[in-house]
Amino acid sequence: MSNVNKLNETHDPALKSWVDSANQTNSDFPIQNLPFAVFRRSGSNEAFRGGVAIGDQVVDLEAVAENELFSGEAAAAAAKACAQPTLNSFMGMGVAYASALRLALSRALREGGDKALQSCLIAQSDVEFDLPATIGDYTDFYTSVHHATSVGKLFRPDNPLLPNYKWVPIGYHGRSSSIGVSGQTFHRPVGQTKAPDAEVPSLGPCKRLDYELELGIYIGQGNEMGDAIELDDSDDHVFGFCLFNDWSARDIQAWEYQPLGPFLAKNFASTVSPWIVTLEAMAPYRTPWTRDAADPQPLPYLESDANREQGGFDIKLEVLIQTEKMRLENQEDKSVSLSNFSYSYWTVAQMVAHHTVNGCNLKPGDFLGSGTQSGPDYEESGSLLELSRGGKESIDLGNGESRTFLNDGDTVVLKGWCQKEGAARIGFGEVRSTVLPAKI
Amino acid sequence: MSNVNKLNETHDPALKSWVDSANQTNSDFPIQNLPFAVFRRSGSNEAFRGGVAIGDQVVDLEAVAENELFSGEAAAAAAKACAQPTLNSFMGMGVAYASALRLALSRALREGGDKALQSCLIAQSDVEFDLPATIGDYTDFYTSVHHATSVGKLFRPDNPLLPNYKWVPIGYHGRSSSIGVSGQTFHRPVGQTKAPDAEVPSLGPCKRLDYELELGIYIGQGNEMGDAIELDDSDDHVFGFCLFNDWSARDIQAWEYQPLGPFLAKNFASTVSPWIVTLEAMAPYRTPWTRDAADPQPLPYLESDANREQGGFDIKLEVLIQTEKMRLENQEDKSVSLSNFSYSYWTVAQMVAHHTVNGCNLKPGDFLGSGTQSGPDYEESGSLLELSRGGKESIDLGNGESRTFLNDGDTVVLKGWCQKEGAARIGFGEVRSTVLPAKI
Repeated sequence: MSNVNKLNETHDPALKSWVDSANQTNSDFPIQNLPFAVFRRSGSNEAFRGGVAIGDQVVDLEAVAENELFSGEAAAAAAKACAQPTLNSFMGMGVAYASALRLALSRALREGGDKALQSCLIAQSDVEFDLPATIGDYTDFYTSVHHATSVGKLFRPDNPLLPNYKWVPIGYHGRSSSIGVSGQTFHRPVGQTKAPDAEVPSLGPCKRLDYELELGIYIGQGNEMGDAIELDDSDDHVFGFCLFNDWSARDIQAWEYQPLGPFLAKNFASTVSPWIVTLEAMAPYRTPWTRDAADPQPLPYLESDANREQGGFDIKLEVLIQTEKMRLENQEDKSVSLSNFSYSYWTVAQMVAHHTVNGCNLKPGDFLGSGTQSGPDYEESGSLLELSRGGKESIDLGNGESRTFLNDGDTVVLKGWCQKEGAARIGFGEVRSTVLPAKI
Repeated sequence: MSNVNKLNETHDPALKSWVDSANQTNSDFPIQNLPFAVFRRSGSNEAFRGGVAIGDQVVDLEAVAENELFSGEAAAAAAKACAQPTLNSFMGMGVAYASALRLALSRALREGGDKALQSCLIAQSDVEFDLPATIGDYTDFYTSVHHATSVGKLFRPDNPLLPNYKWVPIGYHGRSSSIGVSGQTFHRPVGQTKAPDAEVPSLGPCKRLDYELELGIYIGQGNEMGDAIELDDSDDHVFGFCLFNDWSARDIQAWEYQPLGPFLAKNFASTVSPWIVTLEAMAPYRTPWTRDAADPQPLPYLESDANREQGGFDIKLEVLIQTEKMRLENQEDKSVSLSNFSYSYWTVAQMVAHHTVNGCNLKPGDFLGSGTQSGPDYEESGSLLELSRGGKESIDLGNGESRTFLNDGDTVVLKGWCQKEGAARIGFGEVRSTVLPAKI
């Protein structure tokens, strides 16, 4: 079993970097974080390659490899992470390699070090990002019981939470081809809908366009077809986390989703944040996972002491909206909800164990969405469907504008971070994407 | 618009080949077919590469390219089809290239020709196949109204066919990673099920393991995100068809599928036949597509004269079962059903137009399943769930054995072919795969 859940010298909150921007109190990317992305200089024809965030800089792993700055597993990891325009091969090496590279980077970037990495730094403001992995398969879970209940009430008033919910980590397969990285724009989808009072359906632009506040999970080392990943081994197979906006067309969804699940309501676009925070970086923010005594306790394949003791993660998640008017008038993005991944009814380990219990093979770079992470309170709703109570109430944006669902030109921003006394802040950066008018 | 729906010299039923085995009456691969696969010599370390079936031989496209036997678009197509271990790039060139290669092969393989291709032939009995494409995304449709009604009755006795069925070509995303080529074996999946009389669910090997008789559809040229493919343009984006067995664990499915659709009940394995029959080869077997006057007629984006006139395909589809006992006693595979793709409630063009109407991007090598192709009669049922009437009646295999669902060691074989007076037989070969015992 891996040690990515253990604290080590890289987590020491006292560590500072010679990259000054990493030491600022609110930096998402202090030396304790060191998340991975795929990048190149903006507007260049350079090959996309692996990089690591430190403060407002990117460590170019291609430069690290070329200058032979590291040795052993760290060197092998750095070489792999820049050898291709995606991190799939690096992810597939297993967590020991990513961990060795993390340790080498942590030591090389510490205050008082020799600054040999100085020549490998590029300002984040000068780079552009690509999808960090070729996502072979994307699975979306549904792990917030609060979201499932709220949405269930709207789609099935008489039967909001189905009997399987508290036993099965419900998930379904999503579309990989339309997943893009922060900065993605997409046209409002067109689709079939049927208003409750309409006799027949019709085709037209979506009228209930929504975001979904999710955590994204990249698979590291895969499993062979037929071999389940045991609950307590899942840390060996998870590379890291990002932010994920799973755009949803609620009116299309309502009409199409039975009996086989969402399809065109979801597959027109989904957006990830560029940076992947490793499981190891998250170690200080693991939390116990509990299940209400009144609820069914998990079946044995989803149950372990380790999962009870540290299966959860305390990750704050926020949604902000920026309208065209706000952009024109230089107003700040409007925060509309603040939730936490710790509300998840199932842990990441349970998602992985469940996904593979039937022998389904996961591959490096495969992607899991956590499902919309709504909390128990209204202010913690992870979608407009919930905030607007099914489109019945509008949300005041505080600048004279209001929304029930999204307008053309709206940008949705998701942010995530971990913060507490006695540990360094671990930030996820943000994912930002914008709705363009329908093409019809 | 492409001409792959038009008859040309390659379809002439009088054509014979100097490859004698292609001229036998029941050959799946006469000179009018020329389907594509990815192959190498069995047990070798050769690179997988593109090949074309003729009789009992494979035309090695690598040898064709190396010997510079073709020119122009045909040469470019051959070069692309062997340059990588999958056909994705070749598929993405567009149908004009595949069509040019087909014409060149047809001329070069005709009786009386110069047999320059002789040195490029390898016996099919000496080769092994791989997946012909890296399948980025796999979508499974549900286009048999007979299957949807029969299955609906079992899962929802009071509500078998949902109100959207006759308006929306229902589909959902499936799992790519576990799709394998004919010869695939897989362990009986383990999963959560809940018997109707059980108080709580439990984990165990699937007790209701089933096949699904489907047609598989490979996408050729893709579309950009945001750009819908119009119904009458879909022929430009479909590379060809194969046979597809979408294995299903009915007891897992019944417990997990609400509200987001099938997941672990389907993603443990799915098997394709090695050969892809191009749309052009299928031109003689296009049929009118009709919709009962009593049923709703399609919305305009799913309606066209061309689709009415020739949207359907007359493809016979058969399921055979081979048990361990049959293997030991050298008995013939037992045919258990015979159906036809012409029963499909929606056409392939409608599937493509619907899939992209919201701007969803399809990529070369993406894969669509047609859904289980059951016909109106009991003998045309495309799954054991239907043949056994939900597990209530057992099917006599004629050798003293019977089945309601599949046993360990059972091999399921799907076959497909087109045949009629005045046109050459166009065969699909077969897809064959075997259930191994659960690993638990």
